[in-house]
Amino acid sequence: MPTNPTLNLGLIGAGRIGRVHAENIALRIPNARTLIVADVDEAAAQRCADEFRVNFAVKDYRMVLDSPAIDAVLICSATHTHAHLIQEAARAGKHIFCEKPIDHNLTVVDAALAAVDAAGVKLQIGFNRRFDANYARVRRAIAEGEIGAPQLMHIISRDPAPPPAEYIAVSGGLFLDMMIHDFDMARFLLGSEVTRVYAAAANLVDPAIGEAGDVDTALVTLTFANGALAVIDNSRRAVYGYDQRVEVLGSAGAVRTENNYPNTMLLLGPERIARDLPLHFFMERYQESYRAELQAFVDAVLNHAPVPVTGADGRAPIVLAEAAARSVREGRVVEIGE
Amino acid sequence: MPTNPTLNLGLIGAGRIGRVHAENIALRIPNARTLIVADVDEAAAQRCADEFRVNFAVKDYRMVLDSPAIDAVLICSATHTHAHLIQEAARAGKHIFCEKPIDHNLTVVDAALAAVDAAGVKLQIGFNRRFDANYARVRRAIAEGEIGAPQLMHIISRDPAPPPAEYIAVSGGLFLDMMIHDFDMARFLLGSEVTRVYAAAANLVDPAIGEAGDVDTALVTLTFANGALAVIDNSRRAVYGYDQRVEVLGSAGAVRTENNYPNTMLLLGPERIARDLPLHFFMERYQESYRAELQAFVDAVLNHAPVPVTGADGRAPIVLAEAAARSVREGRVVEIGE
Amino acid sequence: MPTNPTLNLGLIGAGRIGRVHAENIALRIPNARTLIVADVDEAAAQRCADEFRVNFAVKDYRMVLDSPAIDAVLICSATHTHAHLIQEAARAGKHIFCEKPIDHNLTVVDAALAAVDAAGVKLQIGFNRRFDANYARVRRAIAEGEIGAPQLMHIISRDPAPPPAEYIAVSGGLFLDMMIHDFDMARFLLGSEVTRVYAAAANLVDPAIGEAGDVDTALVTLTFANGALAVIDNSRRAVYGYDQRVEVLGSAGAVRTENNYPNTMLLLGPERIARDLPLHFFMERYQESYRAELQAFVDAVLNHAPVPVTGADGRAPIVLAEAAARSVREGRVVEIGE
Amino acid sequence: MPTNPTLNLGLIGAGRIGRVHAENIALRIPNARTLIVADVDEAAAQRCADEFRVNFAVKDYRMVLDSPAIDAVLICSATHTHAHLIQEAARAGKHIFCEKPIDHNLTVVDAALAAVDAAGVKLQIGFNRRFDANYARVRRAIAEGEIGAPQLMHIISRDPAPPPAEYIAVSGGLFLDMMIHDFDMARFLLGSEVTRVYAAAANLVDPAIGEAGDVDTALVTLTFANGALAVIDNSRRAVYGYDQRVEVLGSAGAVRTENNYPNTMLLLGPERIARDLPLHFFMERYQESYRAELQAFVDAVLNHAPVPVTGADGRAPIVLAEAAARSVREGRVVEIGE
Repeated sequence: MPTNPTLNLGLIGAGRIGRVHAENIALRIPNARTLIVADVDEAAAQRCADEFRVNFAVKDYRMVLDSPAIDAVLICSATHTHAHLIQEAARAGKHIFCEKPIDHNLTVVDAALAAVDAAGVKLQIGFNRRFDANYARVRRAIAEGEIGAPQLMHIISRDPAPPPAEYIAVSGGLFLDMMIHDFDMARFLLGSEVTRVYAAAANLVDPAIGEAGDVDTALVTLTFANGALAVIDNSRRAVYGYDQRVEVLGSAGAVRTENNYPNTMLLLGPERIARDLPLHFFMERYQESYRAELQAFVDAVLNHAPVPVTGADGRAPIVLAEAAARSVREGRVVEIGE
Repeated sequence: MPTNPTLNLGLIGAGRIGRVHAENIALRIPNARTLIVADVDEAAAQRCADEFRVNFAVKDYRMVLDSPAIDAVLICSATHTHAHLIQEAARAGKHIFCEKPIDHNLTVVDAALAAVDAAGVKLQIGFNRRFDANYARVRRAIAEGEIGAPQLMHIISRDPAPPPAEYIAVSGGLFLDMMIHDFDMARFLLGSEVTRVYAAAANLVDPAIGEAGDVDTALVTLTFANGALAVIDNSRRAVYGYDQRVEVLGSAGAVRTENNYPNTMLLLGPERIARDLPLHFFMERYQESYRAELQAFVDAVLNHAPVPVTGADGRAPIVLAEAAARSVREGRVVEIGE
Repeated sequence: MPTNPTLNLGLIGAGRIGRVHAENIALRIPNARTLIVADVDEAAAQRCADEFRVNFAVKDYRMVLDSPAIDAVLICSATHTHAHLIQEAARAGKHIFCEKPIDHNLTVVDAALAAVDAAGVKLQIGFNRRFDANYARVRRAIAEGEIGAPQLMHIISRDPAPPPAEYIAVSGGLFLDMMIHDFDMARFLLGSEVTRVYAAAANLVDPAIGEAGDVDTALVTLTFANGALAVIDNSRRAVYGYDQRVEVLGSAGAVRTENNYPNTMLLLGPERIARDLPLHFFMERYQESYRAELQAFVDAVLNHAPVPVTGADGRAPIVLAEAAARSVREGRVVEIGE
Repeated sequence: MPTNPTLNLGLIGAGRIGRVHAENIALRIPNARTLIVADVDEAAAQRCADEFRVNFAVKDYRMVLDSPAIDAVLICSATHTHAHLIQEAARAGKHIFCEKPIDHNLTVVDAALAAVDAAGVKLQIGFNRRFDANYARVRRAIAEGEIGAPQLMHIISRDPAPPPAEYIAVSGGLFLDMMIHDFDMARFLLGSEVTRVYAAAANLVDPAIGEAGDVDTALVTLTFANGALAVIDNSRRAVYGYDQRVEVLGSAGAVRTENNYPNTMLLLGPERIARDLPLHFFMERYQESYRAELQAFVDAVLNHAPVPVTGADGRAPIVLAEAAARSVREGRVVEIGE
């Protein structure tokens, strides 16, 4: 009796997000397993292997790419290594799941995507929020015509606290590091491409961020090919926690989402009616979406089906992030493709 | 025994908003009464007088201004007559409550404001939303430091349906006719002045509006002197009804408001959980604010106190509306005072 | 030219609720006016007359009943005077609006209702909550079949704080003084009569209430002739304010209402998400319903139409209050009509 | 290097709830594994073993009890077998996790609990809702004094649809089969014992349930030793789905919970504002609580710590269910221990 097929994965990068994927594969994705985990910090690789039932922990990612047992790799290493690893993995004939962003530099991105095309392997980019129940439901509402033609959209995406200053310096900036998720979400929800970008941004949260040459607060207006208008609101710090909402006005209705909470309790006291804060940050808020995106990748590879988030989907938000950064730098509206 | 003082009002314009004020004075403002109502449509003036206990109905507004019994006038006539009437009323020594906008033309506005200054009379502009419980509560939260320094604001303001095409043609356009309330709200809530405007706008609701040279959908980004960023979202048609919300992120917290509803009932059925639509339009939604703004005007005049919405408050949103219109026309960011 | 008819009212009792009615008649009910106000405290009557445009203030209610100008009387005096005044007013041929309850004693109630019948005048009882937008909407949902056949109902009705101990002593007890509104609401919403009552009650809020021989906390289960079951929850003190909600499960759906709030603002802080407390007490919460019930009475009299809350509607909740009190006293289930 | 200890489990009963536990052990509980699964339907046992990484599938539960490798058993078989299996497992020296109810007959329950005591093994009863985030948060609010002394409680617990008629016949009736969870919840939340029960109940949902001698709709009033009053609302059918809520009024505040939903989306259309229905039934709604209760059991056994839901906790709701059934049968209030 043939057993169900299982996808053999190699994990490159055993940091925070790598461990999320390793745990999901170990516990929640029945048709995949991690055979090898590689990390330049070999002890980190070993801890990850011990915890999540991975057979081998190595220092050198090439041992992953060289292994004939590996069907696909998960690239969860530092951003500046993504494009190079994509190219090598593609040449090794491995299917690829890569965390966002592919790279900060479009030329580098394009080289990586070309290598993927040349090798004929699958590449899925880690825009996990598409797999979240709220956003997926909004997408469905739009795709199935529940609100008619989209006209106006607000995406609100605020972190509970800024990352350390040293991270800011290498992050690529707010637009590439943080808003990139929202640029992807905007394209995903509206199903149309952006033609024009205007970014108003400021350093209001932490002077250290400004000193590092970055902004921490931004409103970015997008004009879409289908005529819709959208604004993305990013802040590095909302003291009440992780704020992840969207609303879309259409010609026949509108949709709105709310944050997710650890419980539904209302506490009614003599001064106010209160509830607990939303799920604190992305690890709690988007937990299920990380599982779902990886399950989708595993299924796409096993079924020879298209991946749900393509290399082109990984490239487009980088273009928008560059345009937003230029808009701030030059204090003007930027046309895509100008 | 001295009775409490009563303010004697003359009403100029017996259309929709004039009748709202007449009814409030008759039924809900104990220390004021309408002595005369004037309208170029004398029958309309008479109907208004009959319904709301007004002694005299006349065709010529000059009979109002000439009457020594009149302490103050309410200017509720067509927009293009506002500035002229303000000047005449000021010269007649009457205190003035005038509906928004003062005029579409800043030169005309400035002449009117100069006449008010010269006469030393009071002028209050009809930005009623400042007196709404939701917006007033948000203003209080900001003014009393409940959210720290404001950083990001969204104002959503959508009508249930567009006005007739013939009205659009004389309305002054979306920014002067509709968004002017939101420009005022932005200044009111943040307590700071706008320095830069970018308007993305489109004709998505009704082709007739585009043919009349106007837009019906807009996202306007404002940069404030205090560093805050704001976006105003306007649509001439939200099929679910009048949508009037605001949210402000501050350094120490955030505030959000919801729409107002005719009841709180949830109806839980086999397909969905539903509630009735929000209060339909401004007459229902802002009913109480119309009373409150007029009560504030009456009290300010009787108590020789400052009015809560000044001529300068009436002028500033017109500047912003002009800037937004220019931003759309020229496809660029506009600096205030450029 | 015939003017619209106006109902001439006499007000008996210038206390808190009498003043609510006087203000509504003066300001918000165009087709009625109060000609006389009577109160044993003549100064109170005079203050009421001064404030609310009433021509005459008198000490003796008989001056109201004797006046041929008076079409109808509003009985807003102490509860123990209601039944007697109803009888006298009926004999004087006046239509009657009487505050609840008619009396604590059913024999006395029945004598009053007999006098009304004999005189052929109209009698409306002041169950104002039927005219509240939330409850009226729930009634409509049930009456129009939006939830099918009602099966289970919860009525929650809690005061923000108990009345003074001296009031408790003469109040008739929780069931007659407070829950009587909820007994009426139960009958109104379900459109069926109660057949069985079980009351669990306790003295948990204030020992003084127990010492006065009353309870302050109760859960009363009602079985209805149509098979539905209901529970009424009363407390003399909810520290978060006036709590007035209902929910009904039906065979095809369910309805629920929420409390009403002074504003819709959410305040999101570092510890919690909060909103302001609900409208504090019945004067704020049910303000509009007081106007609506009186308008309905005025219109019913002027139009020779049935009143919406009859004498029988006033009697039935007293029967239920008696049954609930007996259930507590005897620690058993009580059949109505046993 | 010593590895972390792992608890070796045997599963008796591979039906719906047994499979839930098997999946949790396989995927979400790192320190336990299922070594054997037994079911009288051997094919069901085999399917369960295949899917959830269980080594052995057997027909006879005695093979589980006889295995020295087994530390603890999960009793997930039909209710009438629970007590007997508890006794046998206790004699075999196995720790026991048993689904509710222990038995329909208190004498049988007591014999089972005596066997557990005699053997000195641990017994945890499957009241999973205690581990749900909403109820756990309410318990914490009460235990930590956030609402003062509890006074009034409503527990609403309605199924989306009744079970098949053949199940009703062997279910033990609404109070033992369905409301038992709510009796446990009432004790858990208030931390006090019930002294008096009154049950109003009816057959309103499906005549077949009445023909099987059961009710499908009930309101049960509980009086607690600490003075608090509670009502439990059960219906076998809420057409809008699984309704699981609680609210508690205390002397210093109140708490309320809401249902859980698959997403937070609001859909605003021209007729209504709507959201999707709540999570459909207990498998979706309480998914996480099943994991948490089993994790708690595994940890309690491994750490030689007390279990969070004891045999006494399993017995008490059966006493209440019997009292409620008697209350309906005899149409009267029932004292616990009368």
